[in-house]
Amino acid sequence: MKTNSRRDFLHKLAASAIAMPFFSSYTGFAQPGLLLPKQQNQVLRVALMGLGGYASRVAKAMQSCKRAKITGLISGTPAKLKEWGATYNIPERNRYNYENFDTIKDNPDIDAVYVITPNALHHEHAIRSARAGKHVICEKPMAINAAEGQEMVDACAKAGVKLLVGYRMHFEPNTLEVVRMRQAGELGQIMFFQGLSGFRIGDPNQWRLDKALAGGGALMDIGIYSINGARYMVGEEPVWVTAQETKTDTTKFKEGVDETIQFQLGFPSGAVASCLSTYNMNYLDRFFLNGTKGFAELQPATGYGPTKGRTNKGELSLPHVMHQTLQMDAMAGIILDNDVPTVSVDGQEGLKDLKIIDAIYRACATGTRQHIPA
Amino acid sequence: MKTNSRRDFLHKLAASAIAMPFFSSYTGFAQPGLLLPKQQNQVLRVALMGLGGYASRVAKAMQSCKRAKITGLISGTPAKLKEWGATYNIPERNRYNYENFDTIKDNPDIDAVYVITPNALHHEHAIRSARAGKHVICEKPMAINAAEGQEMVDACAKAGVKLLVGYRMHFEPNTLEVVRMRQAGELGQIMFFQGLSGFRIGDPNQWRLDKALAGGGALMDIGIYSINGARYMVGEEPVWVTAQETKTDTTKFKEGVDETIQFQLGFPSGAVASCLSTYNMNYLDRFFLNGTKGFAELQPATGYGPTKGRTNKGELSLPHVMHQTLQMDAMAGIILDNDVPTVSVDGQEGLKDLKIIDAIYRACATGTRQHIPA
Repeated sequence: MKTNSRRDFLHKLAASAIAMPFFSSYTGFAQPGLLLPKQQNQVLRVALMGLGGYASRVAKAMQSCKRAKITGLISGTPAKLKEWGATYNIPERNRYNYENFDTIKDNPDIDAVYVITPNALHHEHAIRSARAGKHVICEKPMAINAAEGQEMVDACAKAGVKLLVGYRMHFEPNTLEVVRMRQAGELGQIMFFQGLSGFRIGDPNQWRLDKALAGGGALMDIGIYSINGARYMVGEEPVWVTAQETKTDTTKFKEGVDETIQFQLGFPSGAVASCLSTYNMNYLDRFFLNGTKGFAELQPATGYGPTKGRTNKGELSLPHVMHQTLQMDAMAGIILDNDVPTVSVDGQEGLKDLKIIDAIYRACATGTRQHIPA
Repeated sequence: MKTNSRRDFLHKLAASAIAMPFFSSYTGFAQPGLLLPKQQNQVLRVALMGLGGYASRVAKAMQSCKRAKITGLISGTPAKLKEWGATYNIPERNRYNYENFDTIKDNPDIDAVYVITPNALHHEHAIRSARAGKHVICEKPMAINAAEGQEMVDACAKAGVKLLVGYRMHFEPNTLEVVRMRQAGELGQIMFFQGLSGFRIGDPNQWRLDKALAGGGALMDIGIYSINGARYMVGEEPVWVTAQETKTDTTKFKEGVDETIQFQLGFPSGAVASCLSTYNMNYLDRFFLNGTKGFAELQPATGYGPTKGRTNKGELSLPHVMHQTLQMDAMAGIILDNDVPTVSVDGQEGLKDLKIIDAIYRACATGTRQHIPA
């Protein structure tokens, strides 16, 4: 990454906050102080961009974070900025709208921008944040296609900032236990992954059902859990995909907004994955990983609440912590301390999912097996 | 069906057995007697053809039958005929080999032949049994392709005998409860079925891995459970199929013997099915049916032991009875009393699965979606 001496200077200042006690109301600029060898107590100061439903969930979860806190807000709705500002004690100088948020580059209170706007806006918002010298945390899907995703990766590299994707399941304990079992060989050779991801979507007027904002349909929003899950569960990158689209409600799910897609992935080892993505079914949310020596299953696998797992050896029931709390604390470590997570959440990880999404849409359109580029 | 006056006469004689007490050693010819209006106590007298592993299971289960009993044996191995004959008290005159079993037409002790030979032999064995004037119960798959299946249907119709297929799950209580729930609308509109059918096959020298005898691989033997299950669970006939074949072991699974096939079915309502067929994975055997108002799941779904089910309303745990016992008692009612089962087991039912199997193999070979003929 390119060096950014000003940002490095600010980080060193912020890092010095480890010598100070934590205050939940702390929003100011850290005082210079002792630089300890391992800077584990530094706090990542985050501006949330896009104050919708999921941002509310992130904001609440971040109240339990030890290493990340909200220090800025970006919204197109003045009333939201006022309300959130009061709730989370964000001074007016740290509140932005979409016209003026590029000036965030001059704000030393903010290390990173968490982009939680509609999918089709991630590209612009992430790149503008990067150009403002801020690390970027971007909600998934990172963008609406791989070409845009690549531009985001490039822009962040050029700006010398980190690009992370909001893959909260990468920090969820039962999920990580399955990954550990697979890595340790406890499941033997992996043969099969199954992902069922979906829900019946409500309000037909929401942005998720608007192609211009969502970039697609269920696959972008919920199917991506099975795409991403297939990769971290199997532990390989898929090389081919086949897919079949079905639409039962053309009023709710308009042109370009997928309702239900089944897709199958093939991995270099010969393992295969079978996945369902849908906006029109409840009772789903299951991951099933099958190997020659054992299996592991998570159900619920990716909902916001506790996951529940079982394997051939018994139940998985590690304690539940809000996923976004775990994610944001871990991302603080990744950004501030160069921690390496068990399962990557970087821009390349997001980009790979976008390449698969592109290939799935091509497979639906052509009815033929598609190669997934590396 | 064509009338067969001689067989009708024999059936009327056999029907009179209802006036007689049951003897477990009864193998003889019923005495003429009173014909009651509802002939529910008549016993179906069955010759088992092909005395391998599955026939052993059927024979044991039939010891608990109230309406079906073994009265004949057909095998190419003299020692088996002797051993089974002694075990099940089958007189020598009711023991046949593959050269002489056509003479079974002259044996009044036998109403039906249960064909449990390797898949590729079903066609010949069923047609010869039909031509001998015996009802045919044929293990699944009914044949190795739809063309052969159609000839079997035609031959049985011409001979005026019934053709039933050994779909034991059609009589399994938890399975039937799910079918009842779906028919009663308790699951709402059906959207999705998932079937995972497979196991790691052992002995590489068994007939199931010999294309000439098996007609194919896992799809013929175990994948058919998901094919058939998709139909009785969804309650519609699929109109298209896509499929992807994967082979990780070309030594064990030779040309024409499929190891792992994923396939997807589309139904007229827009419901879809996602299925896995494999000879190289354990920890499978699950059916999952998802509707707009509820779901039902069976796991194990089709193993020989007790099924275990759950729905959005709770557990399904109807008492287990050996499937083959239930099947053979019910088939006695179908053959002798023209009972109509909840889920058909007739030749048309078997033929439909063969049309789907043909289409799956075409889909694997061409990589394109295949229409399933009605």
